Amino acid sequence: MDISQFIRTVPDFPKTGIQFKDVTTLLQNGPAFKYIIDGWKDRYLDKKIDAIVGADARGFIFASALAYALELPLALVRKKGKLPHTTISESYELEYGTDTLEMHIDALNKGDRVILVDDLLATGGTMSAAVKLIEKLGAEVVEITCVVELPLLKGREKLAGHAIHTLVEYMVH
Amino acid sequence: MDISQFIRTVPDFPKTGIQFKDVTTLLQNGPAFKYIIDGWKDRYLDKKIDAIVGADARGFIFASALAYALELPLALVRKKGKLPHTTISESYELEYGTDTLEMHIDALNKGDRVILVDDLLATGGTMSAAVKLIEKLGAEVVEITCVVELPLLKGREKLAGHAIHTLVEYMVH
Repeated sequence: MDISQFIRTVPDFPKTGIQFKDVTTLLQNGPAFKYIIDGWKDRYLDKKIDAIVGADARGFIFASALAYALELPLALVRKKGKLPHTTISESYELEYGTDTLEMHIDALNKGDRVILVDDLLATGGTMSAAVKLIEKLGAEVVEITCVVELPLLKGREKLAGHAIHTLVEYMVH
Repeated sequence: MDISQFIRTVPDFPKTGIQFKDVTTLLQNGPAFKYIIDGWKDRYLDKKIDAIVGADARGFIFASALAYALELPLALVRKKGKLPHTTISESYELEYGTDTLEMHIDALNKGDRVILVDDLLATGGTMSAAVKLIEKLGAEVVEITCVVELPLLKGREKLAGHAIHTLVEYMVH
């Protein structure tokens, strides 16, 4: 299945010049969404995975369905201030300023082998901070898996040394 | 399965006096999460449902797995400014000020029968705004389904006339 046909490009969002890759049109297609999740399920079924980690907020959508499909624990990486229990945090640079991600201190167990899931790999800033949080908890990122990749933004360089799996590439900034 | 055993109470979050019901500990239990989703799947399988609607952001987690389980379209209700395409919006009152939710104008089809999913039913403010958005698009909310309900906050009064299904009740404010 060519899933790129279900991804919509919205010009000038969130600002002029950005060609935003909108996965809501993909989510609105039940068989396409199932195709993605089932593909990942097959990919990770025999990899001795202990938990799925999803990034706030679109990453939750893909991570959650995968966790359900594999009957595995789901752990959340959230934006600052959203998690109620004791957290660890990691800040990363945005184009202007910084952002902070958090995980609960008991979100994962030491030695857990995890898959980190998001909808989009762009600069790798979010994924890099998420990897640091997971590793602070003593867990291991077996693979980072995203639906869409924007290779020109060089996320793979920022995440060098980590296995990365993506389904659709777009040569846009 | 008594799923309340997997839900953690965090005192004084997000502010003093609130007993926050934390579902992250539930999500970290693969069989418990699967139990919830499979229960909903059985409940809605023969109800001629056309789409699942999830509310930003924890609602995405439960809605997404249900959409996958039923192989149905997933539509998103998001906080203002997050959706890239043309939206409709609905504001609702918070304790201090207002908040605004949005849906894409093409998130649902006219006549769609939908299930609206969130983690928590409290005052019903979010769910009420989400129902209005769904109905503006010409779709019908067959049932509102949440994991946790706080009956003392009277969400059912605000949502009078709508079918509501919840799994665990807590008599806290």
